[in-house]
Amino acid sequence: MDRLAAQLSFITEIDRLKGVLRQNRVLRGERRENSAEHGWQLAVMAIVLAEHANEPIDVARVVRMTLLHDLVEIDAGDTFVYDTVAREAQAAVEAAAAERIFGLLPADQAAEFRALWDEFESFATPESRFAKALDRLAPVMLNCASEGVAWRSHGVGADRVLGLNARIAEGSQALWDAARAMIEEAVRQGHLSS
Amino acid sequence: MDRLAAQLSFITEIDRLKGVLRQNRVLRGERRENSAEHGWQLAVMAIVLAEHANEPIDVARVVRMTLLHDLVEIDAGDTFVYDTVAREAQAAVEAAAAERIFGLLPADQAAEFRALWDEFESFATPESRFAKALDRLAPVMLNCASEGVAWRSHGVGADRVLGLNARIAEGSQALWDAARAMIEEAVRQGHLSS
Repeated sequence: MDRLAAQLSFITEIDRLKGVLRQNRVLRGERRENSAEHGWQLAVMAIVLAEHANEPIDVARVVRMTLLHDLVEIDAGDTFVYDTVAREAQAAVEAAAAERIFGLLPADQAAEFRALWDEFESFATPESRFAKALDRLAPVMLNCASEGVAWRSHGVGADRVLGLNARIAEGSQALWDAARAMIEEAVRQGHLSS
Repeated sequence: MDRLAAQLSFITEIDRLKGVLRQNRVLRGERRENSAEHGWQLAVMAIVLAEHANEPIDVARVVRMTLLHDLVEIDAGDTFVYDTVAREAQAAVEAAAAERIFGLLPADQAAEFRALWDEFESFATPESRFAKALDRLAPVMLNCASEGVAWRSHGVGADRVLGLNARIAEGSQALWDAARAMIEEAVRQGHLSS
């Protein structure tokens, strides 16, 4: 029963991810997306788009990574992907957050979740490369569909969008081809500066 | 490429689930929960709590069900679980929604997702009984943790909460024991009428 109590306290704690706001908008409505609903969408994307991975992948492990990858933001907050200075400072804060948040779980599950989070961050396995590709593709799709407002409000141009998201190709060449076409269309429509 | 285009249009369409509001609140902040972040939390619960299922389960299939089970609400809206009249009228609307929304996908994936949704609704497999148990446990946890405001604002008392959620036991006796203890505590604290 102690084990279940620990698990339920973890489930209660992670509710806070619903309050962590990202820079991009949801498609209907003016509001910014939160990291919980982002995690849901990535997990669905993993299931739907798995066939486009460059290498054979364990889809269930990709799904787990996408569901857990942002939990550290409960303590560390979300960092805009184009803010490279803030992102470097963030690493130590996120590692401490992983210790605390996964540490709410029974030790075996804490170790399992921490390993999945480390793997996601590593880019070192086919699963992490594909999960990372989805994590970059999702905001590209939402930004393109919302007239690039998050890009424009942060002064991000096409060079940086293309440069930062090129690593999608490491997980899926097909998804990078699709993303690049969307980005080029956003430039043509004037939603992203060239 | 037509296949990928269909998949990406599905991913764009499902963004609308972030705008479907449920009756219960998130734990921090006053706002109501949306069905996308609810789906994320259920999927994490499936991974964390799988060991408490009454029967052996395929956890990855439970995760898929939890991620997809509410997509019909994009067209059909969310129905309060205690509104039994509305819930009966809802079945045909939800079936039409499943046809349209899953139908955006390539035919093989549309059939796979529809089968997962039908299974979830059926209560007929160990996976569906466990996924349904989580779908009932989550709002009980959030309502108990937010002083029962959704229950009180709809005039729902302990008898109905205990009656409607007793089916959690079909998926997990351990989770039902925990839920019943939470509900009894909510009554003791005056957050739920006895």
